[in-house]
Amino acid sequence: MKLSYADRAKHCKNPLAKHLFQLIENKKTNLALSADVTNCDKLLSLANTIGPEISVLKTHIDILDDFTPSFINELQKLAEKHQFLIFEDRKFADIGNTVKHQYAGGIYQIAEWAHIVNAHTLPGSGVIQGLAEAGKDKQRGLLLLAQMSSANNLLTPDYSKKTLEMAREFDEFVIGFIAQTKLSDEPHWIYMTPGVQLSENKDNLGQQYITPQKAILENGSDIIIVGRGIIAAKDPVSEAQKYRKIAWDTYLQSLT
Amino acid sequence: MKLSYADRAKHCKNPLAKHLFQLIENKKTNLALSADVTNCDKLLSLANTIGPEISVLKTHIDILDDFTPSFINELQKLAEKHQFLIFEDRKFADIGNTVKHQYAGGIYQIAEWAHIVNAHTLPGSGVIQGLAEAGKDKQRGLLLLAQMSSANNLLTPDYSKKTLEMAREFDEFVIGFIAQTKLSDEPHWIYMTPGVQLSENKDNLGQQYITPQKAILENGSDIIIVGRGIIAAKDPVSEAQKYRKIAWDTYLQSLT
Repeated sequence: MKLSYADRAKHCKNPLAKHLFQLIENKKTNLALSADVTNCDKLLSLANTIGPEISVLKTHIDILDDFTPSFINELQKLAEKHQFLIFEDRKFADIGNTVKHQYAGGIYQIAEWAHIVNAHTLPGSGVIQGLAEAGKDKQRGLLLLAQMSSANNLLTPDYSKKTLEMAREFDEFVIGFIAQTKLSDEPHWIYMTPGVQLSENKDNLGQQYITPQKAILENGSDIIIVGRGIIAAKDPVSEAQKYRKIAWDTYLQSLT
Repeated sequence: MKLSYADRAKHCKNPLAKHLFQLIENKKTNLALSADVTNCDKLLSLANTIGPEISVLKTHIDILDDFTPSFINELQKLAEKHQFLIFEDRKFADIGNTVKHQYAGGIYQIAEWAHIVNAHTLPGSGVIQGLAEAGKDKQRGLLLLAQMSSANNLLTPDYSKKTLEMAREFDEFVIGFIAQTKLSDEPHWIYMTPGVQLSENKDNLGQQYITPQKAILENGSDIIIVGRGIIAAKDPVSEAQKYRKIAWDTYLQSLT
């Protein structure tokens, strides 16, 4: 018998993970928007119009051509207004001492505003330790990349297994995984799945898509991350509503 | 019989790789400085005082707390004055479509000023393809991470082998590797080795150091990357000169 999001909130050591499970349950949406646009106004506009449909907004702060610190204030206001979490998809992938600076410092000061960030475990557990030193006291959450959606990626089953082991070692800071399929039955891990579109597809730089149904029902994903499927649509808001409904209905179906 | 840097320049398809081998030979330095400071003036001061000793300056642009675009102009002037290349240690690690934007766009516009960047091959060859679309026409060069110096890292021998295969597929853009030991005898690949200090050592976040002699003589490295060994010294300039002499003498020794 699969547990509901609300039930799983009770199993979390990390307060942000608990909050996210509750938010999903209350708002009844397990959809995340990947807002990969290169202009601040465009991103704020998406956050404002699609914010009501999502539990998580995923950003790439470093592709915004006109970033200014005031953009962060605006984004935070929208996150508050529409009740979504901000996930900066930074994919930290350096040694502990470096990622700590990249997370807390620089002009982006990611640790100050991103509820969630992610990291590759490739450099070893020092990457988690370094990030935890900057983010744990701020009650942030870390997702580890356990699998990727791109063609010919080098994340082997053994790599995923070692990533799960590292997550267990730091389970007060790590909240879950970026993955294509669930790695374990521990109820506190959150699985987010990128590369989701209504039709299975590819881009011309190796990205491969699966459907929401496959992600949630077959692969055990908790949150589907949709990017171009929504923002490249003629009417992004109604497309987001369509993805939201499919993802939530599929979740309900998975409980029975 | 090992080839000299000058001989190896003749084997490069990538014009930047050729230029770098020639620069090393002419300037007689195979030392790179990892200038991991968080302040622009401090970084420019290091670039100006240590610039004469190095062939490559390695930066983490995203840990500079007071970055402005004018900083890049100043850094480029120093690179011209002292004849070193700029290597932004970004460790791109996302799908092709994303890294292309991260490399060319955002406020850093890395492709405009970094002669060299690096990437993890973990996401598959799309990461190289995406970066090449933004950097190849600008005559930039890409280093692939084939091995790391941090404790318990997940780069297996098979991972390194696959990284070498991907490099061969894109040998007009890829110039070599970040590695601890040489992967093949092809003379056109440049091997740069981080985590080098005069005494073998560790930091408290998993970084592990080897000596310049071990890197160059035993492991076949071409360029040693020294960070805290120089910038945390009482007199960074004389320390850089010391590393430079050891690294160059060891290179000459390796030829005989």
